[in-house]
Amino acid sequence: MSSHVSPLAPTFVPDMPPIAGVRLATGAAGIKYAGRTDVLLALFDEGTAVAGVLTRSKCPSAPVDWCRAKLKRGKARALVVNSGNANAFTGKTGREAAQFTARLAAKAAGCSPDEVFLASTGVIGEPLKAQAFAGVMDSLVAEAAPEQWSAAARAIMTTDTFPKVATATAKLGRASVTINGIAKGAGMIAPDMATMLAFVFTDAPLSPSALAGLLKAHVDDTFNAVTVDGDTSTSDTLLAFATGAAAQRGAPKITRAGDPRLKAFAKAFRAVLADLAEQIARDGEGARKLVEVIVEGAVSKASARRIARSIANSPLVKTAIAGEDANWGRVVMAVGKAGEPADRDKLAIWFGGIRVAHKGARDPSYDEATVSDAMKKPEITLKVALGLGKGRDRVLTCDLTKEYVAINGDYRS
Amino acid sequence: MSSHVSPLAPTFVPDMPPIAGVRLATGAAGIKYAGRTDVLLALFDEGTAVAGVLTRSKCPSAPVDWCRAKLKRGKARALVVNSGNANAFTGKTGREAAQFTARLAAKAAGCSPDEVFLASTGVIGEPLKAQAFAGVMDSLVAEAAPEQWSAAARAIMTTDTFPKVATATAKLGRASVTINGIAKGAGMIAPDMATMLAFVFTDAPLSPSALAGLLKAHVDDTFNAVTVDGDTSTSDTLLAFATGAAAQRGAPKITRAGDPRLKAFAKAFRAVLADLAEQIARDGEGARKLVEVIVEGAVSKASARRIARSIANSPLVKTAIAGEDANWGRVVMAVGKAGEPADRDKLAIWFGGIRVAHKGARDPSYDEATVSDAMKKPEITLKVALGLGKGRDRVLTCDLTKEYVAINGDYRS
Repeated sequence: MSSHVSPLAPTFVPDMPPIAGVRLATGAAGIKYAGRTDVLLALFDEGTAVAGVLTRSKCPSAPVDWCRAKLKRGKARALVVNSGNANAFTGKTGREAAQFTARLAAKAAGCSPDEVFLASTGVIGEPLKAQAFAGVMDSLVAEAAPEQWSAAARAIMTTDTFPKVATATAKLGRASVTINGIAKGAGMIAPDMATMLAFVFTDAPLSPSALAGLLKAHVDDTFNAVTVDGDTSTSDTLLAFATGAAAQRGAPKITRAGDPRLKAFAKAFRAVLADLAEQIARDGEGARKLVEVIVEGAVSKASARRIARSIANSPLVKTAIAGEDANWGRVVMAVGKAGEPADRDKLAIWFGGIRVAHKGARDPSYDEATVSDAMKKPEITLKVALGLGKGRDRVLTCDLTKEYVAINGDYRS
Repeated sequence: MSSHVSPLAPTFVPDMPPIAGVRLATGAAGIKYAGRTDVLLALFDEGTAVAGVLTRSKCPSAPVDWCRAKLKRGKARALVVNSGNANAFTGKTGREAAQFTARLAAKAAGCSPDEVFLASTGVIGEPLKAQAFAGVMDSLVAEAAPEQWSAAARAIMTTDTFPKVATATAKLGRASVTINGIAKGAGMIAPDMATMLAFVFTDAPLSPSALAGLLKAHVDDTFNAVTVDGDTSTSDTLLAFATGAAAQRGAPKITRAGDPRLKAFAKAFRAVLADLAEQIARDGEGARKLVEVIVEGAVSKASARRIARSIANSPLVKTAIAGEDANWGRVVMAVGKAGEPADRDKLAIWFGGIRVAHKGARDPSYDEATVSDAMKKPEITLKVALGLGKGRDRVLTCDLTKEYVAINGDYRS
């Protein structure tokens, strides 16, 4: 948790409504930080469905392994998240810490450990002292309340400079249902997935498979379209919980993501994911600019995505943007290194809506002063048109500043 | 050309002997820089063979296109290299500038434009004013002399902080032959190939295909094993020239790289490539630490290479090293994100020869103070053992410092 707030932080922060069937509590277990909360407990009413998307890292954290195993059942009664320690690369001790935490929460909440989901974020490789949770678990269960969303988002922060919350409502049948989300990000952010931790909660009565289908449909263009530094975390976790409480108010039970009655809900669900994902880019470590990279005219969407990622992850492109330099030469380099079909002589590039390159060379009409003004803005769109096909994609990233290096050069010490 | 010199610069700089059949001259054409040389002309005696390895970028520079076309003939009489402008993404104007330069040099040197090789380094996307060469070409040809190696290495520098030269001798038959190399690097350095520009010269009588075979055999473990920022240049060029002058002193003519008489020569040739490649890592933009990443126990050499590159290109690993932090958690992350076979619970990691992680967790015997001392050194070896197979590879890189961001945040402006 940084003392300054990113200049890209959203100016509007929504009031987060309660979600029927969800209660939250936060506490200070003293895992790493002093003087702040570092543990979140979410309790869910019986019948809550869960689905998730987890890191594709070949070296996942112990909580990721735990969640992957428990997601198969699709039932959740509790979620325990801690910041300060990722419980990753902690071997047998780490697996035991995960198990200990789940049992502790299960006992306090009166459920099975198989219904407890876990996520940890922070330092990798240091043993997580899960015993610290023992001192706070009973009071967390006792204090859990429906209106702790902002506190929940704060408790899971590491190098984040602002808590990330998003909310939306939608009609499901005749009932109005709510979707709340919280996330933390900041560094070690790269697609598959593009966030450290994100949790989405709804009172809609969705089955685990409907929830999983929704995640699958929308994660690629939201969380997987964000990159801060190209570094995929060992701990990336997106979990969605559906309590089903809205069924009592007449919301129909939905068992598959393709159900036409889910259309409005799916749109709102996607909006919450997109909002959280954008906030993660806005809080990229040391970020001063939010950068939207659009690639169009590629041979396919997948090709456009790979080129967009190559641009968005290029240290030379990102440092140029930090320097407010519309250095489209480096964009050409990043297009070239992506290895995807590209024809230099068809390439066009825009910074902030101003075309600076065209047909493989500098745009003759391009005015340095106008572009320079555009580059001073906190939000910059960088568009590349390849002129080969109809493939289009979009990735969000941020600039690479000296602060990124400062933050990451002394994070552990 | 920076005012300070990298703290990692070699302390020993060899005297560069002449190469029979090679003459060099440098001049100030005023392409971009004031008060320094920015053009190198190398002239070769008739019968000089040439081979090369060029960037795999899909958006190569005009000189790269030029060289790719001319390499097929395998004959060289001149090389023109300029710094300050890469003549990349310059469209038709760029092709014309390359052609103009080659014709100019051909006329002055009395050869065919097809025997002139070109390389340009510097800003991408700005038109190269090749007319500037017209003012200096005749005097360059007139002044060309065998002993200008250090000046040649200086003329091709951009953000380099020291000129890069290397030399070796070897027996070929009964004759002693010489291999000289010069290179420039610093930023936009990533495998395929790992350098902006490198030129190697020898008096050995090698055919173009023998020379090409030698490059192919040794480029992977030298230039392609260096990465500064993962950004592959549009201009990466490695050219090797063999004048054959040593044939007059009894060196046998060699027509294929596999010729057993070439054994000692091949070893010396590789040493020159390895020396230049290491100097490029030592002069990575903003570098304070030279980092050797060794991966062993992978399922194959290719897998080890991919994991080593993932570690060497990780901003989080590189900033940790800049902060002298043996943050092996980030190494685990980088192993995990490589997508290659890895078993978290078999992983072991060493920093500076000290094992910090073992069997998927922190090494119980690891002493923070000892590791901390090791991290203070300017050269650090980071070793990862996967415990899966016999695949081993090695990549050189440097740390990621605030200076990298500073250098690249205002390079163009």
